[in-house]
Order: sequence, then structure tokens, then C-alpha cells
Amino acid sequence: MVDIIGRKRDGLEQTPEEISFLVQGIVHGSIPDYQLAAWCMAVYFQGMTPREARDLAVKMAASGDQVDLSPLAGVKIDKHSTGGVGDKTSLVVAPLVAAAGIPVCKMSGRGLGHTGGTIDKLEAIPGFRTEMSLAALFDQVRAVGIGLVGQTGNLVPADKQLYALRDVTGTVASIPLIATSIMSKKLAGGADGFVLDVKVGDGAFLKTKAEAEELGQLMVAIGKNAGRKTIAVLSAMDQPLGKAIGNALEVKEAIATLRGEGPPDLEELSLALGAQMLILAGAEQETSAAQARLKKLIANGEGLQVFTRWLAAQGGDPQVVEDLSLLPTAPIVTQVQSSKRGYVGAWHTEALGLTSMRLGAGRAQKGDPIDHGVGLVIEKKIGDWVETGDIIAQVYARSQAEAAVAVDEVLAEVELTPTPPPVLPLVIGYII
Amino acid sequence: MVDIIGRKRDGLEQTPEEISFLVQGIVHGSIPDYQLAAWCMAVYFQGMTPREARDLAVKMAASGDQVDLSPLAGVKIDKHSTGGVGDKTSLVVAPLVAAAGIPVCKMSGRGLGHTGGTIDKLEAIPGFRTEMSLAALFDQVRAVGIGLVGQTGNLVPADKQLYALRDVTGTVASIPLIATSIMSKKLAGGADGFVLDVKVGDGAFLKTKAEAEELGQLMVAIGKNAGRKTIAVLSAMDQPLGKAIGNALEVKEAIATLRGEGPPDLEELSLALGAQMLILAGAEQETSAAQARLKKLIANGEGLQVFTRWLAAQGGDPQVVEDLSLLPTAPIVTQVQSSKRGYVGAWHTEALGLTSMRLGAGRAQKGDPIDHGVGLVIEKKIGDWVETGDIIAQVYARSQAEAAVAVDEVLAEVELTPTPPPVLPLVIGYII
Repeated sequence: MVDIIGRKRDGLEQTPEEISFLVQGIVHGSIPDYQLAAWCMAVYFQGMTPREARDLAVKMAASGDQVDLSPLAGVKIDKHSTGGVGDKTSLVVAPLVAAAGIPVCKMSGRGLGHTGGTIDKLEAIPGFRTEMSLAALFDQVRAVGIGLVGQTGNLVPADKQLYALRDVTGTVASIPLIATSIMSKKLAGGADGFVLDVKVGDGAFLKTKAEAEELGQLMVAIGKNAGRKTIAVLSAMDQPLGKAIGNALEVKEAIATLRGEGPPDLEELSLALGAQMLILAGAEQETSAAQARLKKLIANGEGLQVFTRWLAAQGGDPQVVEDLSLLPTAPIVTQVQSSKRGYVGAWHTEALGLTSMRLGAGRAQKGDPIDHGVGLVIEKKIGDWVETGDIIAQVYARSQAEAAVAVDEVLAEVELTPTPPPVLPLVIGYII
Repeated sequence: MVDIIGRKRDGLEQTPEEISFLVQGIVHGSIPDYQLAAWCMAVYFQGMTPREARDLAVKMAASGDQVDLSPLAGVKIDKHSTGGVGDKTSLVVAPLVAAAGIPVCKMSGRGLGHTGGTIDKLEAIPGFRTEMSLAALFDQVRAVGIGLVGQTGNLVPADKQLYALRDVTGTVASIPLIATSIMSKKLAGGADGFVLDVKVGDGAFLKTKAEAEELGQLMVAIGKNAGRKTIAVLSAMDQPLGKAIGNALEVKEAIATLRGEGPPDLEELSLALGAQMLILAGAEQETSAAQARLKKLIANGEGLQVFTRWLAAQGGDPQVVEDLSLLPTAPIVTQVQSSKRGYVGAWHTEALGLTSMRLGAGRAQKGDPIDHGVGLVIEKKIGDWVETGDIIAQVYARSQAEAAVAVDEVLAEVELTPTPPPVLPLVIGYII
């Protein structure tokens, strides 16, 4: 292991045998933590080649259970987001793609820190269950075209251990280690292809386009080298996606979007991601045709119908779709009024995510309880004009005291400028 | 600790408080090894500023016993070598400097790998003891002007622990960590000043002049910032120093040098290092005057007289000075004859050190026993002309089989060239 560390430290490529030795050592506990920690820090500085990253992701995927989706007919395409604030695209894209006849069989996670998790959002729906056997999941996908569960206990144990170590050794922010961690879980999930939403900006884990491109390129290389169709979409996370931040608030916004009444940015990104899923599944050839098909599934209500059937199949109350008041809501709703005027030049998006987290919508630590009703609704987006006294956001809180703190925070998290800021694209580019 | 790792990873300077926290954590075991390992690897890549290195060395020095040399009158100057092959300068310099009236009170170590240790060499002298109390050491220095002991048990425990971790995490070869490790031990040793012999070349730990300069500069900065007079001498280690490699063989060569009959390179470096010790002690102002004084102490035999009194004071048999056959010797002495002709262009010096180690003169692992009689004598130095059949070296071995292996190795460790190689200086420069 000292030799393996030394080779990585000196910028040499690790052999497939060395990667196997590493992953075996992680799983069996035969490599001491201090050697793994030194190796992670060497990777932080020296990076990994696509070949090394592919080998590491594949070996980590094989370190535990690997889901076999072959009992399900059709081409199974998974979507993954690197995480942002107000990102509820899975709730929109999954039923739309299922309505297009592509089976959606998905594993999702919970939120941590400034970002939320799809499982948490769905659990805002009364009765919604995300724990079921694979057999039951497959039956549901066959019956209603869609199913979503939490990650199983023994998926990629090597990544769980390595991540825990990275978390306490300053080596989380290594792009190759992020890429292999994500892709090992995707590979173990068993889909035939992946659409990766790589977010970039203040509300994302990666703050610069260069870093996001590097991560996207490495993840696409890993997916393709492992024999899976893979595409990455680079998308802006310089402001919350849509207006809602917080679990029930985001479910409401997803339902509105499936009705064709959602915020334009959320619909745009949902269509962009969904179109790539249709293309990878072989259901469409062209992005424009794929997007048109998805738009039609919004317009004719078929996407919302699949969403409703999906909820019902997983124990959720399907009435919430028609009666949003059945979703949990916070007792206190407070308007955030601007004391200044100007164009919205920027939102401190990570800070907004943390404000929402402190209101109870997210977790500071793994395992913290969350409150599905609380959160924020951002009423003014970048480029909007704000008059003194205009409502720029609404705070959904458990108490007046918590609301007051959040109002002050939100006021500090917006930047008003005298001139309109440049208009930047939401979908920055594709990595294929 | 995660923050401290992150700051070092990001190239920021560690505060004095952070360094204190680190050293306390090492000593008390309150920082897990995996975090220290990640930090060491971050230091490997990001380096340390002189201020950080000084703080770390001083705090590590304070982690255990610190020797107080103030009961001894005069300015106490220590010499340190970063380690080379055939480096027996301490055996020559210490008695010469003592003969000049400067008290020499020294702690030395044992050898490991391709380099030998001064303690091992002195123990080749029958009866020589290197364990005694500080009080006894001081009494001896007052009586005969010189004393040398092994390092005490609780000197710089923080370095012992950190070094053990570095050894298994690929972080030994970090210049700031080498500098702080060496200087923490020097500072704890209590001398008023240090002459540091920083060796560069194939037989040294540092193979390039740039690395050696970096180490020398950092060590000098640490010493000076810690309030000690410090100078570094950069010296070439592209061939063994002198002719002898191996403990008793090196003692014989040191005695010859004190008689004025030693190899020119060993005398040259001994005079260079000794002169700087006299200057730091305030006994001389100029290098040339200091060297002339030391040469006189060779010519008039006073250096050898001090050496003889020193041996006797530490239990060694003083007769060995007059009768070298009283020193241990190997049963087998084999000549290494060249099968080719040419100028000696290079010696693979680290390899020669390892050949000598395998003959029994050194240790592959800490704690291995050594044989004081075995080793090599190099008869041809770089630039010498070799005819086919000339003896280029002699092997002192425990058996014919071991001798035969060593002969083949030595033949592979010399490079003969048709034209004379460039003449390079032994003393490359000074860092003050």
C-alpha cells in the first residue's frame, strides 16, 4: 500500500490490480485508514485518469449488491443531479418519461446540508412509502411504469467507508473521488444509461464552470467505459431552481409544472433532462422532437396522471394532486419585503439552502429529523425589478421567532443592482 | 482538525495555535492517525513556510525532554549530517574541535538502510559505551573536552510518532517534514548552534541540488528563528566519502585522517565542517584561519590525542589507536578486479551502501544486529583511471558466498567511461 500511495503521490497511473487491491482493502478493512487517507489526499492533488476512475467506480460498484434491472423490459435510464437548491426536477421528469413509455425505476437519496433529497420531498406526501423489496418495485414499474425507492443497505459499501473517511480528512472536494463515488452508486443501480445533471454555481457543490466540466467529463467517461450510455447536462445553479425550497412546497411546484403552470426555469430544465433520457432510451433521435413529446405529455395531462398513479402505488394520498392543502404546511407564513429597489443581481443560493435547512426543511447532520411543511418561496428571480416594499420571498416557518431570523437572512441573501444583470443560460451545455 | 487539513490542502499558512493543536494532538493521541496522514500528504504537496516549520520544530522539540547544556561552560556547537555512505566525519571533526578548546557534547543515532550511524561506528571499538547519564556525560566533557551518547528515550516523542506514520503513508520525502523532524531533535539536544551537513547526490536522501538547497535553507531558517546559530554546508554524495564503508573500517580511516594520512576528500569535508563549528563557537572569524588551526591539530597530533582520551573515557580500548588490528575485522577479504578499463565516471553510491548493509554492516530494519568488521573499501574514486585487472574495491565479508555476491554487486555499481568525467566540488556551497 505504501507503494500504491507513492505512485499516486508521484503522479503515476494506478494499475487495475492496484485499484482492485485498494477496493478489496477498503471492504475487508485490511488497509489502515491512515494509508487510505494519505492516498485520498494524493488523489486530491494528482487527480485520476479516466481509466483509473472507471476501474475504481466499477470495482466499488462490485463491492456490494448490484441491482439487476433486466427483469424489467425496455431500456432503463437513470437521472442523477449533483445537487442544488430547489431542485425538484426528478418529481417532474420521472412521470413525464414514464408517460412516454420508458420504464422509470429509480433509487434516490435523502438531503444533507443546503441541498434537499428526492426521497424527503416525496415523503412530504401523506402516506408515501419509499421502502419496498426489489420484487415489489419491479411489479409496480410493470403496472404503472414508474417506481422510486431509497438506496438499499448494501449498495456500494466501499463508497460508504471511503466517503466517511474523506469527510474527516479534507478530501471530499476531489473531483475524481466525487465522480467515482457518484458513478459507483449509479453503476450498482443497474440502469442501462445515465443522464447526469451537473450543477454549477453558488448553490452547487462546484462553484466554477471549469470544475463542473471536469466532473461531467470524468463521469461521462466512467459511464461510457463501463458500457453504459451516459450524457451530462451542465446547468446553472446561481439561483434556486423554480421558486420553492422545502419539501411540500417543492411537491406543489412539481405538480404545478406537470399541469403546465410551473416556473419557466423548472420546466425548461425538466424538458432538457427528460429529452436526453428519451434519446438514451432510443425513444427519440432529436432533442427538439423529444422535448416536443414531453411538452405534449404536460399539455394533455398524461404526465400528471402517471404522477397520480405513482403516488397511489407507493401509498401516497392521490387526492393531494387535486387538493394541495392536503400537503403539510407551516403554521407561520411571513412575507419578505425589500427595503431597497433595484434589479435582482444575484441570490446567495447556498445561503438560501442553509436558511431553509435551519427552518427545518433540511439536515445539518445525517439522521436529523426534517419538517416537510417549512421552507422558502422565492418570488423574484435574477433580472427581476424590485420596488421598495415588494415581496421578494415568503418564509414558511414553525414559529414567529424562526420566521424573523429567516426574513433577515433572506434579505441579506439577495443582491440588488441598479442595472439589469446579464442574462445567463440555464442549460449551459452538454457533455457527450 | 478537518479545518486544519483543509487550510493546508488549500495552501494557506497554519497559525501558531494550529501547530500547537497538532503537536498536542500527536503527543496525546487525540488526533486520529488518518487525519494526521491526510495532513502530512497535504504538506507534501503544499509545503510549509519557514514560520510554520519553525513553530512545528519548536513545538515538537518541547513535546518531550529538552537537554539543558548550560551546566557546561562555553558555546556548544552540534554537527548534523543528513546521511551518506562512508560518512565518518563526526569521528574526525569532534576530536579536532574539542582539541581546539570547544566543548563537544553530542547525541548521535544508529544507521538504517544504506547509511551508517556514528554510534554504530564507535561501538566497533572494543568496550566503547554510548549509554550514560547526562551528569556523567557532562563530567566527561569537563574532564576530556568531548563526549558522545545515544539519543535519550524521551527526546521529541512527537517526532517519533509522526515519523512512524510518515513511514507507512508515503510522506517521508517531504522536505518541510524532513527539516522539522531533524531540527526538532537538534533543538531538543540543547546546543547553542548547529553546523548542518546537507548531502546531495546518489548516495544521499536528496538526489538533486535544488532539493538539498531547499532543505538546507529551511533548516537554517528554523534554527535561526529558534534563536540558534545555524549554518548548512552542501556537500557532494555522488561517491562514498573517503574509501571505507563499514564500521571498523571507517574507524580505521578516521584514525588515519587524524594522523594526517586519510583520504583527501574526508579531510577536506572534516576541515570544512570543523571550521564552521569553530566560527559558530566564536573561536575563529575566518574560514581559512579556522581550517589552518584544525590542520595544525592534525599535524601536531593533538586531535588524535583527544580521540584517544575520548575512547578511554567511554570504556573503549585506547590501544586500538596504535594497533588497528585490535578492531574487529571480517574473516574474508576479497579483491574486486575490474574486467574493463576506463575512467571511473560514477559510483552508484546508494547501491554501494546497500551492498555494505547486506554484508552485515548496516540494518534493513530498525533493531537488526550489525557486524562491525564487514564492509567495503573503495580503491578507485571518480576520475581515477582503471586498467583491466586493477583492484577497484575490497570486500570484507563473513563468508565466501557473501563476498562473491558483493563482488558482483560492486562491479555493477561502478561506471567506467572512456574520457575523464568533469571534476565536481566536494563542498558545493554554504547556506547562512
